[in-house]
Order: sequence, then C-alpha cells, then structure tokens
Amino acid sequence: MIPRYARADMTAIWSAETKFRIWFEIEAHAATALAKLGVIPEHAAKTVWEKGAAAKFDVARIDEIEREVKHDVIAFLTHLSEIVGPEARFVHQGMTSSDVLDTCLAVQMKRAADLLIADVDKLLEAIKTRAFEHKLTPCIGRSHGIHAEPTTFGLKLAGYYAEFTRARARLVTAREEIATCAISGPVGTFASVSPEVEAYVAEQMGLTVEPVSTQVIPRDRHAAFFAALAVVASSLERLAVEIRHLQRTEVLEAEEYFSPGQKGSSAMPHKRNPILSENVTGLARMVRSAVIPALEDVALWHERDISHSSVERYIGPDATITLDFALARMTGLIAKLVVYPEHMLANLNRTHGVVNSQRVMLALTQKGLAREVAYRLVQKNAMRAFNGEGPLLDLLKTDPDVTKALSTTELESLFDLGFHLKNVDTIFARVFG
Amino acid sequence: MIPRYARADMTAIWSAETKFRIWFEIEAHAATALAKLGVIPEHAAKTVWEKGAAAKFDVARIDEIEREVKHDVIAFLTHLSEIVGPEARFVHQGMTSSDVLDTCLAVQMKRAADLLIADVDKLLEAIKTRAFEHKLTPCIGRSHGIHAEPTTFGLKLAGYYAEFTRARARLVTAREEIATCAISGPVGTFASVSPEVEAYVAEQMGLTVEPVSTQVIPRDRHAAFFAALAVVASSLERLAVEIRHLQRTEVLEAEEYFSPGQKGSSAMPHKRNPILSENVTGLARMVRSAVIPALEDVALWHERDISHSSVERYIGPDATITLDFALARMTGLIAKLVVYPEHMLANLNRTHGVVNSQRVMLALTQKGLAREVAYRLVQKNAMRAFNGEGPLLDLLKTDPDVTKALSTTELESLFDLGFHLKNVDTIFARVFG
Amino acid sequence: MIPRYARADMTAIWSAETKFRIWFEIEAHAATALAKLGVIPEHAAKTVWEKGAAAKFDVARIDEIEREVKHDVIAFLTHLSEIVGPEARFVHQGMTSSDVLDTCLAVQMKRAADLLIADVDKLLEAIKTRAFEHKLTPCIGRSHGIHAEPTTFGLKLAGYYAEFTRARARLVTAREEIATCAISGPVGTFASVSPEVEAYVAEQMGLTVEPVSTQVIPRDRHAAFFAALAVVASSLERLAVEIRHLQRTEVLEAEEYFSPGQKGSSAMPHKRNPILSENVTGLARMVRSAVIPALEDVALWHERDISHSSVERYIGPDATITLDFALARMTGLIAKLVVYPEHMLANLNRTHGVVNSQRVMLALTQKGLAREVAYRLVQKNAMRAFNGEGPLLDLLKTDPDVTKALSTTELESLFDLGFHLKNVDTIFARVFG
Amino acid sequence: MIPRYARADMTAIWSAETKFRIWFEIEAHAATALAKLGVIPEHAAKTVWEKGAAAKFDVARIDEIEREVKHDVIAFLTHLSEIVGPEARFVHQGMTSSDVLDTCLAVQMKRAADLLIADVDKLLEAIKTRAFEHKLTPCIGRSHGIHAEPTTFGLKLAGYYAEFTRARARLVTAREEIATCAISGPVGTFASVSPEVEAYVAEQMGLTVEPVSTQVIPRDRHAAFFAALAVVASSLERLAVEIRHLQRTEVLEAEEYFSPGQKGSSAMPHKRNPILSENVTGLARMVRSAVIPALEDVALWHERDISHSSVERYIGPDATITLDFALARMTGLIAKLVVYPEHMLANLNRTHGVVNSQRVMLALTQKGLAREVAYRLVQKNAMRAFNGEGPLLDLLKTDPDVTKALSTTELESLFDLGFHLKNVDTIFARVFG
Repeated sequence: MIPRYARADMTAIWSAETKFRIWFEIEAHAATALAKLGVIPEHAAKTVWEKGAAAKFDVARIDEIEREVKHDVIAFLTHLSEIVGPEARFVHQGMTSSDVLDTCLAVQMKRAADLLIADVDKLLEAIKTRAFEHKLTPCIGRSHGIHAEPTTFGLKLAGYYAEFTRARARLVTAREEIATCAISGPVGTFASVSPEVEAYVAEQMGLTVEPVSTQVIPRDRHAAFFAALAVVASSLERLAVEIRHLQRTEVLEAEEYFSPGQKGSSAMPHKRNPILSENVTGLARMVRSAVIPALEDVALWHERDISHSSVERYIGPDATITLDFALARMTGLIAKLVVYPEHMLANLNRTHGVVNSQRVMLALTQKGLAREVAYRLVQKNAMRAFNGEGPLLDLLKTDPDVTKALSTTELESLFDLGFHLKNVDTIFARVFG
Repeated sequence: MIPRYARADMTAIWSAETKFRIWFEIEAHAATALAKLGVIPEHAAKTVWEKGAAAKFDVARIDEIEREVKHDVIAFLTHLSEIVGPEARFVHQGMTSSDVLDTCLAVQMKRAADLLIADVDKLLEAIKTRAFEHKLTPCIGRSHGIHAEPTTFGLKLAGYYAEFTRARARLVTAREEIATCAISGPVGTFASVSPEVEAYVAEQMGLTVEPVSTQVIPRDRHAAFFAALAVVASSLERLAVEIRHLQRTEVLEAEEYFSPGQKGSSAMPHKRNPILSENVTGLARMVRSAVIPALEDVALWHERDISHSSVERYIGPDATITLDFALARMTGLIAKLVVYPEHMLANLNRTHGVVNSQRVMLALTQKGLAREVAYRLVQKNAMRAFNGEGPLLDLLKTDPDVTKALSTTELESLFDLGFHLKNVDTIFARVFG
Repeated sequence: MIPRYARADMTAIWSAETKFRIWFEIEAHAATALAKLGVIPEHAAKTVWEKGAAAKFDVARIDEIEREVKHDVIAFLTHLSEIVGPEARFVHQGMTSSDVLDTCLAVQMKRAADLLIADVDKLLEAIKTRAFEHKLTPCIGRSHGIHAEPTTFGLKLAGYYAEFTRARARLVTAREEIATCAISGPVGTFASVSPEVEAYVAEQMGLTVEPVSTQVIPRDRHAAFFAALAVVASSLERLAVEIRHLQRTEVLEAEEYFSPGQKGSSAMPHKRNPILSENVTGLARMVRSAVIPALEDVALWHERDISHSSVERYIGPDATITLDFALARMTGLIAKLVVYPEHMLANLNRTHGVVNSQRVMLALTQKGLAREVAYRLVQKNAMRAFNGEGPLLDLLKTDPDVTKALSTTELESLFDLGFHLKNVDTIFARVFG
Repeated sequence: MIPRYARADMTAIWSAETKFRIWFEIEAHAATALAKLGVIPEHAAKTVWEKGAAAKFDVARIDEIEREVKHDVIAFLTHLSEIVGPEARFVHQGMTSSDVLDTCLAVQMKRAADLLIADVDKLLEAIKTRAFEHKLTPCIGRSHGIHAEPTTFGLKLAGYYAEFTRARARLVTAREEIATCAISGPVGTFASVSPEVEAYVAEQMGLTVEPVSTQVIPRDRHAAFFAALAVVASSLERLAVEIRHLQRTEVLEAEEYFSPGQKGSSAMPHKRNPILSENVTGLARMVRSAVIPALEDVALWHERDISHSSVERYIGPDATITLDFALARMTGLIAKLVVYPEHMLANLNRTHGVVNSQRVMLALTQKGLAREVAYRLVQKNAMRAFNGEGPLLDLLKTDPDVTKALSTTELESLFDLGFHLKNVDTIFARVFG
C-alpha cells in the first residue's frame, strides 16, 4: 500500500483493527450458534459478546503474542481470553484458524467490492454528464492514430460509459464469487463443528455458505475476483490513454484541469502535463499485476497449503486500494476535464475533407461504378488533398471522372457533417436507456 | 497451436476455411439487410447468397491476393467478386473491415466457448461418477502436505465438482461477454450503414448487438473472456497437482491409468509417471499466459489501433485449443484413474492416531480443562506418537493427566473414523443437489 | 507459430527434422565417446555414424511409433534401430531421455539466439544509418506528450541504438545461459554414464558442460533466456510506439513506407496507417507472455517433473520466431521510414517559443532573481504565448519585469536553436564510439 | 511493503529520509561541478554542502509543500532553500526533476542489489555447509515424484548451490544494468547543463554515465533488473518446493526447524508444517509479479511519460524488500534444516530395489540381449517387486531368463549403492571448485 495512492475508506478495510474486529464477530457469532446447539454454555457466548463488543483489541499486544507463538489466530485468541476471561475457552470450539481467516478475508473483499462498485457508479455519473454535455460536439474519429471519420466527443464518452457498465457488472459478479463463509474445520468435514454454525455465521456476516471447503475457501474464487479487477483497471487505462492522446500538444482537444497553484515541471513552467491520466496508466499496470499471483494461488496442495497467504497480504490491500484510488482519480479527472470543442473542429478540418472519402466512394458505386474503380478514383483525389493541393471537395468538383457521375450538389451533400451524427441518438438510447 | 495438444473440433473453428465461411455469412446477411432497406438491389443479395453458399473459398487464392494488396478483407472481397460476379460490388456497402473481422471473431469465440462448456460438462460427469464411487472411501486430509484429519476421496472430488461448476458458470458468462456483433462503420457512428443492418446480422449469427463500438468491439470483453479461461485452467492445475501428489511413490493413493503398451521411461522400466497430470499442469501455464496480453490489448488508441490483432491470432486459437485439450485429457484421466483405497487407509493410519488429537483436545476442554492446558497435554502425547513411541490412543490411556478427565471408553470413542464422515451426506447434498 | 509472423531460418530450427537430426548427433557423439571409453564396440559407434548421417529420419514413422509407445525418445530410438540395424542397441547406453531432449533444446535455443543476435545487428545498422542521416534534423522533444525542448531526430535514434546495443548484450548473456549440455543419467549422478561422455558431446555440439544436472538442465537458465527476450521485445515496443506517435495525423513527422499497391483501409482510401509498428507492438506482448510460464517452469519437483515440456513446446518456437520476425520487420521499417524534417520544424515552432522558457528562467536567475520569482515571471508569459497571444520572445520583450533583467539581444540569443544541439556530437561519440 | 516480510536494512534504502539524503547529495555534487565550471559561485556550492550535510530533512514539511505545489522535487528544493538560504537558488541549475529522481533510483537499486548479493552469498554459504555435511548421505532421486535412482542429499544441495551461483551472477549483471547516472536536462540534450556535471555526479555517486538519456534513464534497464530478481525468486521457489516435498508426512526426509514455543495449528497440536518454505513459495510469486509491469514501463511515450513512476513506487521497494526477506528466510531455514538420513535410507529401500532396474537392464544388454528384450525382462520383475512380491534382487535371482545371462554375484553387484555415488566427488569439484 502506497499512502499517496490510497484513500481512507478502502485502507480502513485492510487495517489490523478492522481485521481483528471481524475475527471477533466471526468467533462471537460462532459462539452464539454453538450455544444454541448446546455445545457451549449460553452464558459463555453472552459473555464473549458483552466483553468483546465493548473492547478495543490491542494490535501491539496481539503482535507481541504472535512473535512468541508464531501463529496469528492463536495470538488473537490469547488476547481475547485476556479480555473475556475464562469463558474464552469456549470460543473457537471445533474450528480451525482458516475458518476465521478465510471468512474474514471474504468479508473484507466483499466490502472492498462494495466500495469499488460505488466508485464505478460515481465514474459512470461523471462520464454520463460529460457525454450528454458533448453529445453533439463533433470531433474526428481516429483509427491507427490517423483521422478516419467524424464522430462526437459525447459518443466517445458513451463508449466508456458502456464499458464501465460492464465493469460494474464484473465487480458485482466478483463480489458474489468471494462472499462465502467457511466454518468447516481442519479438512472441511465438519467433524468437530456443525454445518449449522457455518450457516448461522454466514447469515450474520452477510455471506453465503461455501458448499464445500477444504480447510480453506477454494482460491479459484479469489483468482476470479482479482481477474475482474484487472479487467476494470485495463478499461481505466484505455480512458487514461485517450485523455493523454487528446492532451498532446499537437492535438489538444482536451486537457486535465490544472489548478492555479500546480507546477507542471521544475524546468518548463509552461507545461501542463496529463499527469493524472499517466498516473492511472501506471496504476492499471499494478492492479493487473495481481492476476498472475492470484492464479498461481489456485493450485494449493491437497486440502491447503499456506503459500497463498503471503500473496494475499500484498494483493488483497494493494489491488483494491489502488483500483479504488484510480477510479476516484479518474472520476475527478473526467468531471473537471477541460474540453476544447473549437480545437476538435479545427483538427476535424485539418485533412481537407478526405475523411468524407468513403461517402464519396459509396456514392460513386451507387451510381454504377465498380467498387475498385470508385476506390481508385477517390484515393487519387484524397491523396492530393492530403498532400495539401486543396480541399477534397474542390478537387472532386474538377475531376471529370467524378463529375460524370456526381453533380456539384450531390458532391456538396456528401460533405455535410450532420450525415455522421444522425445515429447519435440511437446509440445514446442504447447506452443510457 | 501445437498439434499434439489440439483436438479436431476446436481446431476447425480457427481454420482459414471456417473464418472465410463466417466472413461470407456476415457479408451475405448484411447484403440481405441492405436489400430490405433498399440500399442495394434484392437480386444482388440473392445472387451473393446463391453463388457464395455453394462456393468453396480458395484459401491459397485469397492469400495470394493479400500478398499484393496487404489487406485481408479486401483480398477476401476480391476473391468473392471472382465467385459472385458483378453483383459483388454491392457487398460490404458502408461497412468497414472490422465489422467483418470482429463479428467473425465473436462467432469463433462463442463457438469455442460452446465447446469448452461441453468439455466441462463431461469433466463434471466424470468427477461426479468417481465422487459417488468413493463417497465413503476414507483417506487422510492434508494441510501443508502434513496429515491433518480424515476425509474421504469422494469429498475431495466433490470439491472439484463444485469448482468446475463455477468454472462452467464463468465460461457461460465469458461467452455472453464476447457474443456481440458490430456493424457500425469506420468509427462506429453508423454513418454509412444503418443500425438495422447490424441488428439483422446479429440475430442471424446468434449474437447480440454491441451497444456502442468504435470500429472495433471493445477489448475489455475479450480480456474478460481470456481471464475466465485462465481461472478455469488454474482449477485444472489444482486437480492435476492433486493427482501428481497422490501418485508419488511414498503416497500412491491413486495413479493415472497406464496402458499395456506404454513405456514410462527409457531408463527405468518400473516407473509409472503421472505424465498426463504433469502435462495438464504445463498446459494450464500456457492458458494463463494469454491473460496479460489480452489485458494489454484493452487500451487501444482512440477508435482503434491494430496491435490487438496479432495477439489474437496467437491467443484466440492457442488458449481455446489448449484448454479444450486439457479439459478432455483431464476427463479421460479422472474417468480411468486407478484408486487404491487400501493405500489410503494405510496412509491414514500411518501417524498412529494423532490425527484425532483435536477431538481429544476438545473433549478435554469440555471436561473443564483450560484450552491451553488441554492443548499442551495432547501435544505432548501426539509428539510421542508421531515419534513412534506407540499409537496415540495407547499413550493417552496411560497418561494420568488425561485419564483423570477421560475414561478409556470415552477415549476410544474419540478415535472412531465415522466421526469424521458424518457430514459427507450434507456436503454431497450441497454440491450435487 | 503463426506463419504470417514467421521467417524460414528461425522456423527451421524448431522443425521436427532439425530436432531429430540434433538428437541423432547427440546420440552418435555419445556413442563415439562410449566407444573411446570401451563401453561399447568401436564398430558400433562407426556404424551409427555411417548409417545415421546418411539417413533422412522419417518424421511420420517416428510419430507412428510414438502413438504406440507414448514416449518420443523411445520412438526415435526405435526408428534409429530400423535405420542402423542391430548396432543400434549400443546407442543411448546409460543415458536417459532428458540427456537427449535437454541438450537438443540447448542447441536449438543457442542457434535461435545466434539468429536473434544477427537480427539485432541488422537493426542496429539500420538505426545507425538513419541516426547519422538525421543527426542534426531538429525536432521537438516531448515529455508527457507535451512539447518540452528541441532535440534532433538523430538523437532519438541514438537512444534506440544504445538500447539495442544493450539488447544485444542481453541476448549474448542469454545464449551463454542456455548453451549447456547434460548427459548425466536419470538423476544426474552419472551412475551409468561417465562424465567424459558429457564432456565430449558438449564440445562437439558447441556447448559447455552443465556443472550439476538432475536428469534435466535446471530451468532457471531457460527462464533467464525468455526474460531476456521479453526485455528486447519491450525495447522494440518502445520504438514501435514512437513511430506510431510520429505518424499520427496531427504530428506526421515520420511515416512507414507505403508501397504503391498497398491499401490502407477498405473504407477510407486516403489512410496510411502505421500498421507495421502497431503489429510489432502486438508481437512484443506475445514475446513477453512467455516470461511468466518460463518462470513457473523453474520449480520442478525434486529431480524433475515434466510440466515444463508442454510449455516449452509453445514458447520455445513462439517466442524466438516472433521476436525474430519483429526484429526483421522493425529493421525494414526503420530502413525505409519516410521522415519529414519540414513537419518536424513546423511542430517545433508550434508553441511560439515557449520551449525556450527554461533558458529564459535560468538567465533570469543568473541575473539575480530568485528561482521562484523567475519561475512565475516566465510561466506567466509562457501561458500567454501558449494561448496564442503571440510568440514568447515578443511577449518577453515587452514585459518590463523581464526587460529590467535581460536586454533584447540577450533575450534573442536565448531563442537560438543551436543552443540545444551543441552536445549532439558528444552524445553521438558516447553511443557510436 | 508488508512489515512482516521486510528487514530493516533493505527497508531503509526506500525510506523518505534516504531518498531525500540521496537527492541532496546529487544536487550538492552537481552544485560542486557547476561551481568548478564557473556556472555558479563556489561559495554557493560550499554553503549548500555545509548547511545541507548537517541538516535533517523534514519529511513532513516536504510533504506539506508537495500537497500545495503537487511536485515532489520542487517541494524538496523549496525545503532545501529553507535550510540553505539564498544560495539555494543556484541549486538544480539547468537540471530537470528526472535528473534527480532517476539518478536517485539508480543509487537505491544499486544499494538494493548490493544487499541482495550479500544475501545470496549467505545463502550459498549455508547451502555449501549442508551440502558437504550430507555429501554422501544417500537418498532417492525422484522424477515425476516417482522414485528413480539413488542420489545424495548433498548432491541435491550442490544443484542449488550452482543455481544460486548463477543467481548471484544475474544480480551482479542487474546491478550493472541500473547503476547509471543521468543529468542531461529536460530532453537529454545537455542544453542547459554540461555533460561534465553528469560525469562528476556519476563518479561521486558510484555510478557510470548513461550514454544517452531522454529526460529519463531508459526503462529497459529497470525491466532487466526486475526480470533478474524474478529468476532469482523462482530459484528460491524451487528450493522451497523441494523442502515442502521432503517434509510431507509420508516422506519426512527433512523438516524445518520447529522452535519449542511455536504452535503448528490451533486445532492439531501434533502438526509441524513447512510454513517457512510455503511462505517463500508465495513470496516468490510476488517478486515475479513485478516483471510484467516493469516490462510495460519500457515503452514510455517519446522522451518520457510518467506512467512508470507509480509502478516503481510499488515494485522498487516491494520486489527488493520481499526478495531480501525471502533470501534471508531461506538461509535460516537451510542452516537449521533438520535432516533425517535414516528416513532417506528407508524411503530409498521402499521400492524393493527396483531403482536399480536400469543397471540390470544395461548389464543384460552388455551380455548381448537386445535392448527391447532386456527392457521387458526387467520391467516384468520390477513390476512384481513394485507390487510387493519381494525385493527385485530376489526375484531376478529366481528368473531363469535373467540367470541365463547374469550370475548371482553379478546381480548382487548391481544393487550396490556405491555405484550411484562414485561421481559425487567429480560433481562437487565442478560446483564448489
């Protein structure tokens, strides 16, 4: 976790305090269930709740115990017994450490998913607002970095809106994947703890029951979770790269908001750099880097080995905190993005009308020319325009091979910008409903 | 594509013949839609269908044209016009290459997903059969590679069944992710082609309409697809690693079927090696290796760049063909797996009963001993048993600190294997319904 | 291997024919060594060489045998005995399959490295030629995609020359890493084969002796090899991305050569797209994708498991063939790159001189202004110039806060382009010697 | 950085205090060089050194300034001017932020490499000690997890010694790769700062001069560095997996040292789990996960973009701190590893002598039997022995097809363990010199 790329709410999910609180809740709910089943005395469960709910768990003290016993859950239980007193011996009955650890991780990942989904909702809102604002702001569409045909800036944003709608759905699925509870004992057989305890704790903690666990919750779930985050991060990268391109000096169709006190460079005071979107590009790489270790964690040995544990201590917090930060950063960036419609129009007109060449070609074929003939005819004039010999429309008007097929009026109609924007409403309806 | 790791049906999806057939279908369906809209003559669409449906596309000829024009779709259209004649000029009206390429890729990936889902169904069936066969075959559960508590071989398999049920669901979601059709022109504005053409082609090809495309179908969809494959592959690896462990000389609880003609090693004729599961382990690495390039493909520049194309020429076939092969190989392996219940039992008894130590510890705490005291008491005896001083039960029977709390009868009941199997039915009901 | 991204020489290294020829050479050299040691009859080794050297190994026949015995080396040896006759029984004495397989792979990877190094040499030559051609062609340097200060196109290329010099060194190191021979028997103890056989075969095959093997050559070597390839591929990507940027419509400082017959797009005849460099970008992703599986191959179980084998069947050919193709493609691209010095100059002047702002700021501080004061003074005028209020030089000349410190002559000297180019010779001397 | 996987010395390299101290040294050395060149007054450089060397940089104060100016180097320079006074305006003359940032990173990575190399030296020492201790401790060699032929535990360790010798060499190369200094201005032209400044600072900081930089030091260097770390981590994983295998209950040939106070499991007091090596396995995954983002950082846009920066804030500390920790953990683990020679011998004898089958087969062929005949003869008896019908030697002694070719004495000599160990000295000489 890098403080500069971390926000408070997500970071709090992964704090030692939160973890021990969740551990307590799992143990205490289990105690309640065990008491209901008559396995432990009711007063024991009650005492655990009363003393534990009021207590603040002492992270330093637990760490100190762990240094001695070299086992984190035993250290916690020892500290819990310091708080609860003799009734603590009824806690954790028939359970194994992973019952607590894995269920806690599920709670943390679920909460993390909740925040990420809320982040995406805010980003969607920001994108939507700007998309409608620029629904009909014409700009050039580019393939291969080369001017293609006109589109609108709103349409660009509509594409991102649709993509982050999918991102949201992936996060919802990912949240479901990992929101399971396992309290099934050392090898998942419920030998010493009833499935009813698991069912009760699951319900109380907002989880579903893991159908079959093997001491641990199977790690394909976690891998699917981190894979979903990686796809979301890659979508963020696409948007970040778009902005970086639009802000290039030669393009300058949009620009990150540059606050008055901000300095762009120690050496070049005039520079306004797209550092936020560059930053998001780098953060996307980091979120993605969690995927491979998460996939490598799946093939644990037999009923479990503990190799996944260290991996998750890194990627659990890192991937979620980083993605949360990147989503929020992007939301602010989009909300405040400075858009230059006049630059968009100037760029659009830069290629002297050759972006309309496909229309001309189609019109020629509809007049009966073979596709190949039309293609070559338009290509010839387009190259001349592209090389600065004049606007394509003017060149076409004076090419007899063209004017044989198309009148001046017909030609002019083919250069009407509205032609390209006529289906914007349709697309917006598809995307925004 | 490595022939030895490829099966015919999946390989066929990615052949040049299949690709050109799908291209034809997309173009021909588009022609039908264009004719309905009055954009091209009805007879043109009809001729395209009649001549094209009957024709066999000449891959070598198309390749030859491509070498000249350096553009695959133009090469195909040129060849199509050789087959269809002058009416071919009405084909591809207002469309761009990616309309064909991306929709074709969607069809191929959807068909690949269909096969993979069918593969998983067969694997599930094989696992289920063996799971019920060994529902109550006791074996030792292991954490950290160390004996933990008894479980059954059926329970192990039930875990894999549940995991591949999730794998199936992920593939179904992945299939939905990529089964979209885009026929929207050079920058996705439908400037020269009506959204109705896209809707018609989508329906005919069994796809849904891409809400907003930008010449290309957005690559977050493909990334999510390959990520899903990677998770499935990792689950295969887990199963493969389990078998490799069970077949170790010292463990030998199960063994890959070894056909009479097969030779295990050029040097050591006695060896029967788990080469199929080792092979699946390696193949899983390869399927996973598609994830990062697929994620890197997402951030295409502006309305598209073509960097994704070469990547997909590799990973499209490779990841699907490899996973198909690995799933089928694993299905055969599981179906024919030689299981040794007697070895399982022998291994189970190898640690002289210390696997029951948790039960003893719990029983002691229920008799009123502090958890810490019970823990140390059992640990001491367990260590002695583990070191070969005698079965744990015998040692406990002669330890006065133990016998103060537990009678001989009580102690003996704690070593009953049935105790560990009592919830097998419950878990099977959860998993198999 | 994708034929369109494969060249003949590299592909041949990985053919079945080449592989069996190398296997033969290893076995035959081993036979010679065994004969020298008196382990097998001299005439046997002689016969093997005579009959084997003349023979063409029948790949289909070997495959047929392998389908029965399910073991590739045994299949080969069986076929060899069909060619050599009864003396073949002396072949492979005391050896194990991996002795042949791993030593062969070392030979193949070494040859692949030879080709890659030759590829890099050609690329270096192409870059060098263009670097000297454009040593003093001024263009704007950009950080964050934003104009920074002037540089030259030759300097840009010098940077790539230096980078590919490092790439070459990495390939040389990688070649050394994998060029080892192991003929040490089933667990590497030389129990049944003398270390002298290994030494002899190593020398004959142009390899060094593996100090300690465990049936297999340790896979950290191969991982280091593929990691080196991945770094080289990433350098290619950087160059590809540079060209893609320079070819953007708004920038157009350089352009991939566009042959007369080539078509850029089925829809937009005017487009000339940087498809080669986009292609190299994608290929770089693929070369990189070999790294993780290669790293995952390192931790084989005990003296070996065979999980690495399937991985290497993919990545051995794929990574080397793809990188070979990408290097050659880039070499042609650079050699023929169309450079537009006039566009470079036009872009350089686009920001009205603000790229000289650092110089002005420094001059002001040298006149005694505090850095912060100078910074703000220049920033204010730079912003005005950037917003089109006039060339920075003119604005500075009329700002009394500036003219108090700097005379008109001094200001004008700060806008001299030569200032930025004065160390080009020094850098070229460092890079090209 | 996860505190539980971090050691003090490596962590200190990445602290804010260290970073600002290095920044100061770079700036101060540059000032000295600038003074020598007459660019700034000598007393200014002297003052900077005097006041700066004595000062403690206030991290909180710098952070506070950064929050306002949003630029880390400007924040530092501002704070420096608070310490140094008016002479601070001469600092950073003609330099750009990256000159400081990248050179500092080079210093930090070089120091990190120093520590890692020292770590590997300690690990080598530990492995060597145990290798000689167990040079002739026989144990079974295993391929595919199946018993193959005898080897010694010392030979296993010798293999790791050789591997970590290579690891060391890779780290030395990696250190060279990144130990360069760049002080070349905003686009690397030395327009405002002389190459002599760079040369002076490089020498003072123990670096070499970067031949050509582009504001930044090229990131192929950093990628090569992290790739080297990943290969080293994978070698650690191989050793960790070996230990985990050896500690399995059924194998138990070696065991991690288990301190008296340590608890293996909250539920099963008898368990001693190989948690250190499992932990190293997971840590290796994390070190590896830095490779892909590092490779993705290479293709920065034009003269630089800042997307690499966030990536390096994570992986710079994380990969080096984690690898340092894992190396040290492994060193302790190996030094204290509990080895059970008697279990090794028991396992060796477990397959009733079939591990000698290759020797028997060879002996038979040397007596004139065809390889295929010998193979089948041995295989038949080996299978019987493997299935428990008796020791292989006994079965062979009573098989007339065998005894026709080999006498009892000859057969017995083929089961002599010394046969497998005869080349241990040779291999040790190769590895340890």
